[in-house]
Amino acid sequence: MTKPVTRREFLSLLAATSGTATVLSVGGALGLLPATTQASIPEIAPLNDKRRKVVILGGGISGLTVAYELGKAGYDCQVLEANSRAGGRIRTYRHGDLIDEIGNPQICDFDDEPHLYFNAGAARLPSTHANTLHYCRELGVELEMFINENKQAWVQDDNFNDGKPMRNIEVSTNMRGFMAEMLYKAFTQTELDQPFSQEEVESLLTVFRQFGDLGQDGRFTGSGRAGHISGGFLTVPEQKELVDIHELLKASPGVLRSVLVENEGETGPVLMQPTGGMDKIISGFTNKLGDRVSYRAMVTSVTVKDDGVDVEYQKDGERHLIEADYCFNCIPTHLMVGITNNFPDEYVEAMKYIRRGEAFKAAFQMRSRFWEDQNIYGGGITWTNQPIRQVWYPPHGIGKKKGVMLAAYDYGGGMHFTRMKQEERMEHLLAQGEKIHPEYREQAEKGITVAWHRINHMLGCSARWGQMTPEAEAHYRTLQQPTGGRHYFIGDQISRRPAWMESAIQSAHLAMQDMDHRERNGN
Amino acid sequence: MTKPVTRREFLSLLAATSGTATVLSVGGALGLLPATTQASIPEIAPLNDKRRKVVILGGGISGLTVAYELGKAGYDCQVLEANSRAGGRIRTYRHGDLIDEIGNPQICDFDDEPHLYFNAGAARLPSTHANTLHYCRELGVELEMFINENKQAWVQDDNFNDGKPMRNIEVSTNMRGFMAEMLYKAFTQTELDQPFSQEEVESLLTVFRQFGDLGQDGRFTGSGRAGHISGGFLTVPEQKELVDIHELLKASPGVLRSVLVENEGETGPVLMQPTGGMDKIISGFTNKLGDRVSYRAMVTSVTVKDDGVDVEYQKDGERHLIEADYCFNCIPTHLMVGITNNFPDEYVEAMKYIRRGEAFKAAFQMRSRFWEDQNIYGGGITWTNQPIRQVWYPPHGIGKKKGVMLAAYDYGGGMHFTRMKQEERMEHLLAQGEKIHPEYREQAEKGITVAWHRINHMLGCSARWGQMTPEAEAHYRTLQQPTGGRHYFIGDQISRRPAWMESAIQSAHLAMQDMDHRERNGN
Repeated sequence: MTKPVTRREFLSLLAATSGTATVLSVGGALGLLPATTQASIPEIAPLNDKRRKVVILGGGISGLTVAYELGKAGYDCQVLEANSRAGGRIRTYRHGDLIDEIGNPQICDFDDEPHLYFNAGAARLPSTHANTLHYCRELGVELEMFINENKQAWVQDDNFNDGKPMRNIEVSTNMRGFMAEMLYKAFTQTELDQPFSQEEVESLLTVFRQFGDLGQDGRFTGSGRAGHISGGFLTVPEQKELVDIHELLKASPGVLRSVLVENEGETGPVLMQPTGGMDKIISGFTNKLGDRVSYRAMVTSVTVKDDGVDVEYQKDGERHLIEADYCFNCIPTHLMVGITNNFPDEYVEAMKYIRRGEAFKAAFQMRSRFWEDQNIYGGGITWTNQPIRQVWYPPHGIGKKKGVMLAAYDYGGGMHFTRMKQEERMEHLLAQGEKIHPEYREQAEKGITVAWHRINHMLGCSARWGQMTPEAEAHYRTLQQPTGGRHYFIGDQISRRPAWMESAIQSAHLAMQDMDHRERNGN
Repeated sequence: MTKPVTRREFLSLLAATSGTATVLSVGGALGLLPATTQASIPEIAPLNDKRRKVVILGGGISGLTVAYELGKAGYDCQVLEANSRAGGRIRTYRHGDLIDEIGNPQICDFDDEPHLYFNAGAARLPSTHANTLHYCRELGVELEMFINENKQAWVQDDNFNDGKPMRNIEVSTNMRGFMAEMLYKAFTQTELDQPFSQEEVESLLTVFRQFGDLGQDGRFTGSGRAGHISGGFLTVPEQKELVDIHELLKASPGVLRSVLVENEGETGPVLMQPTGGMDKIISGFTNKLGDRVSYRAMVTSVTVKDDGVDVEYQKDGERHLIEADYCFNCIPTHLMVGITNNFPDEYVEAMKYIRRGEAFKAAFQMRSRFWEDQNIYGGGITWTNQPIRQVWYPPHGIGKKKGVMLAAYDYGGGMHFTRMKQEERMEHLLAQGEKIHPEYREQAEKGITVAWHRINHMLGCSARWGQMTPEAEAHYRTLQQPTGGRHYFIGDQISRRPAWMESAIQSAHLAMQDMDHRERNGN
C-alpha cells in the first residue's frame, strides 16, 4: 500500500524540487494553504553530529533571524555588528541615546520615562505580517495597537481652507458626500454601459445614499458625520456647513489621497507596535543570542571560496578572521560595495544598481498631551502639504502627562531638512507644526532629528529599487541567488517591499531554506 | 477701570442667566470654545455651612456622577442601588459572575484570568466623549485601544459569495473600485450640472483613480488592496480576481452599509476601552464613594414635596425613609412607572412614552485565538446577515492563549434568541458562527448569553425614543425639567443618544447645574 502523503510532506517535496516561491503559489492554487498570510519559518534539518560555522554580517533583523533559527538547528553562528547595538533601522531613541548623525551628533534628552520614546525607523507592524508577529509571540514581545488613521486628526494644506487645519473627518465626509451625489446622479440621469436590473439599481442607490449620507432625494447637504458645532447628546446637534468641492479640490492631491485612501498596502490592516518601543523585538532576539552577537565589529573583507566564506573584521583595534561554511550578509549594499570582496561582477553591478534610500524623521517631547484635549487619542496622522508632510500623535501613554510626537516624516528624500543645521531644522519644524497646532511651539520642549542617510553605520534608509524594470528584475534575481552557493545577501534590501521588517525576515527565511536544501543534499 | 471679564467668567455669567444649552451654542458661535468636544463638568458652589441631603435612585453611571460631583461640593449624598453592584448596563462578566436573567440564570464559567471577560453592555468609548474620558482620567482608569473596524475581518452573507465569508477588505476594495470607475466614467462621458475647470476635472480624475485603485485609463481591473493570493514580499504578488458588482449587490444592504460606512456617528472616531473591563470606570467611582452607595436597596416610593423629596426603600427586609432636599433618579422609566410616586401626570405620561429597549448579546470563551492565525489582531467586527449580526474579536490579550469573542449582538430587539432556551441559543450561536469560522464549534468552550430586557433590576436595554416627533420632543422636555424643582430624571434615557455613557453623564451634569443654579438663588 502506498503511504499517503500529508499536506506538509507534499509541500516539502515541492520545496525540495522547486524552491519556496513555487511552494507558496502552488499551495495557494491547490487550496492547501488557507487564503491568509502564514508565517514561512523554514524547517532547518538539525545538524546532529555535523559542525557548521555560519558568519552573519550585520545585526539587522534579517541577520538576527538567521542566527536565531540556525542556532536552534545546531549551527555555530556569529553575528558581526559594526554598531554598539543591533537592530539597524529598528531603532528606538530614549533618554540619553546618541543619534549618531555624521556632523550632527545629538543626545536624546527626552525625560527618562518608559513611554517617552521615538521609534525612528520601523514604527508599524501590520496584522498581515505573519512572520514578524510569529517572532513577537515566540520571543515574548508584548504588542499594543497602533492607530494610523485617526479621523479626529487634522488636515492642513496651505492652499485649502485659508491654510487653517480642518478635521480629517470633515474633509473625508464632504468628499464622500460629493462622490456619492455624483454617483447617484450618474445612475439616475445617464446611460451606463453595464446592464443593471431595477432591483440592483435600487440597491446601488441605497449604497450611494449610505456612503455619502445623502438625503432620500440623493442630494448631499452636509452630514453630521463631519462632526457637530455643538450639542448632540442632550440638545439638537448644530450641523457644520457643507464644504464645497471646489474648496476641497484646492488641497494637494497627496493630501486628498491620504484622507481618502486608507485601505492601501501595508498600512491598510490593523497595525500594532511593541509595548515600550519597536526595539523590544530586537532585544527579544539578542537576549536569546547572547554572546553570539559581536558588537563594534567592522567587516573589512569577504572572500567566497568553494567550500565556505572567509570574513575578516576589526574589533577593539584587532584584526580577526572567521572561516565559515556559510555567510549571510545584511550589510546595506551601498556600504558593502566599499568593503573588499571577491563577488562576481554581476553581484557588484547589482549591488550598485540599488539606490540608497533617504528619509528624514523628527520628534518632539511635548509638555502636555494637548491633542487629547482635541479628542485625538490613540495616535494617528495629521496630513499637511508642508515639507514635514505628517505629524503623528503617540498611540501609547493615554492619560500620562507628556508624550512624544513625530514632527516630520519625509520618506521621499528628506533633503529639505538635512541640508539645514540642527537649530534651523528645529525652527522649521516648529514653524510648520504651529500651522496645525497654534500651541505647538510652546508645547515642544525637546526635539531630535533623524536623517537616516547620514546616520553612522547606516548612511541610508531602505533600499530603492524603483520601477521593477527587466533590468531591475535581473539584478534582483542575481542578489537572491547565493554567491558560490555559500554567501547569501539578505535584508529588506533583497525584497520587493523594502522598509518592512517582514521583508527582511522573509529574505532570511528564503536564504536559510536554500542553505538547508544544500546541506540536505550533502553540501 | 473696568476689570476685564475672563472667558470663563463670561461663560459663567451666561450660564447663570440662561442655562447650559445656551452656553454651548453661544460659546461656539463666538469662537470662545474651540471646535472640539469639551467636558461639561458643572462648577457646583460649595455648600460651606449649609447642609443638603441628596438621594440618588439607581447606581448607574449618571447616579454615580451626581454622588461624586455633589459630594465634592459638600452635599450629603446617598445612592440607592437595587442590585448588589453598581453600574447598570456597564457590566463586565467574568469567572463566577451571575448573569441574572429571569428564568435563565447563568454562572459565567470563563477561566479565571484577567483578560477573559465580556463587556456585556457598554463596550466602546469614543475619543469624542469628552466627559467620559474626563472621569477616566480623574479616577485613574487606564485605557487601551478598541478596534471596531478591522478590514482583515470577514463579511458573511448567505446570499453572497455562495454564503462563504470574504475579507472585509476584499468587499470594500471591489465596491470602491466599482464606484470609482463609475465616477470616472461620469466625469469623462457625461455632462454635469456643476461647472468644473479643466484643472479641477484633472484633480477629480486623480482622486477617483486613487480612491478606487483604477488604471491610468480609469478602469478597475481588481486591486492588490483586496489582498494577495500569494507572494508580495519576495515574489511578484498574485492578485485576487475582481469581484463583480452584480455579486457584491447580492449581499444585504445592511452588510454592505457596514462595510462601506465606517465614519459614522459614535463609532467613527478612534475608540477605547478600559484595560481589564468596562466596569473599571464604575469601580473608579464606587471606590471614591465608599459607603455612600447602598446596595440591595429597593426603592418603594418617591414623594415630591415643596421643600424636598421623601424616598422610601427596603433593604435587608427593613423599611427605610430618606427625607432629602433633592432627588436624582436614574431608575429606568419602565421600572419607575411601577414604583409609588406622586409625579404630575405629564411626567407619568412621558415615562410611559419611552419604549423599553431590547438587546441580546452573547459571548464564547475560545480555546485558542484562532483569529490571530487569520491575520485578525486587535479586535474588530465580522458582519453577517444571520441573526447573530456580528461577531467581535477581543481587542486585548494579543498573544495570550485564549480569548473571549462576542458571538452575537442583536440591538434591534433580540427576540430571535430570547424566545429560545439556553441550550437552543447555544446551538444557534454555534451554527451561525461556523458559517464564518469552520473551527468555531470546536473552539467555543464556554458560552454566555445576555438578554438585557430579561436581566433582573433592568428588564430593558437603552431607552427607545424613536423618531423625535413633536410629541416625543414634548415628553423629552418634560422629563428634562425637575419635578417640583426637587426631583430630576437622569441617565442615558433622558438624552437624544441613549446607550452611551456620555449621554448619561451629560444628563447628570445638566441636572446638577440646574440644582446648583437654584441653590445659588436661595432654594
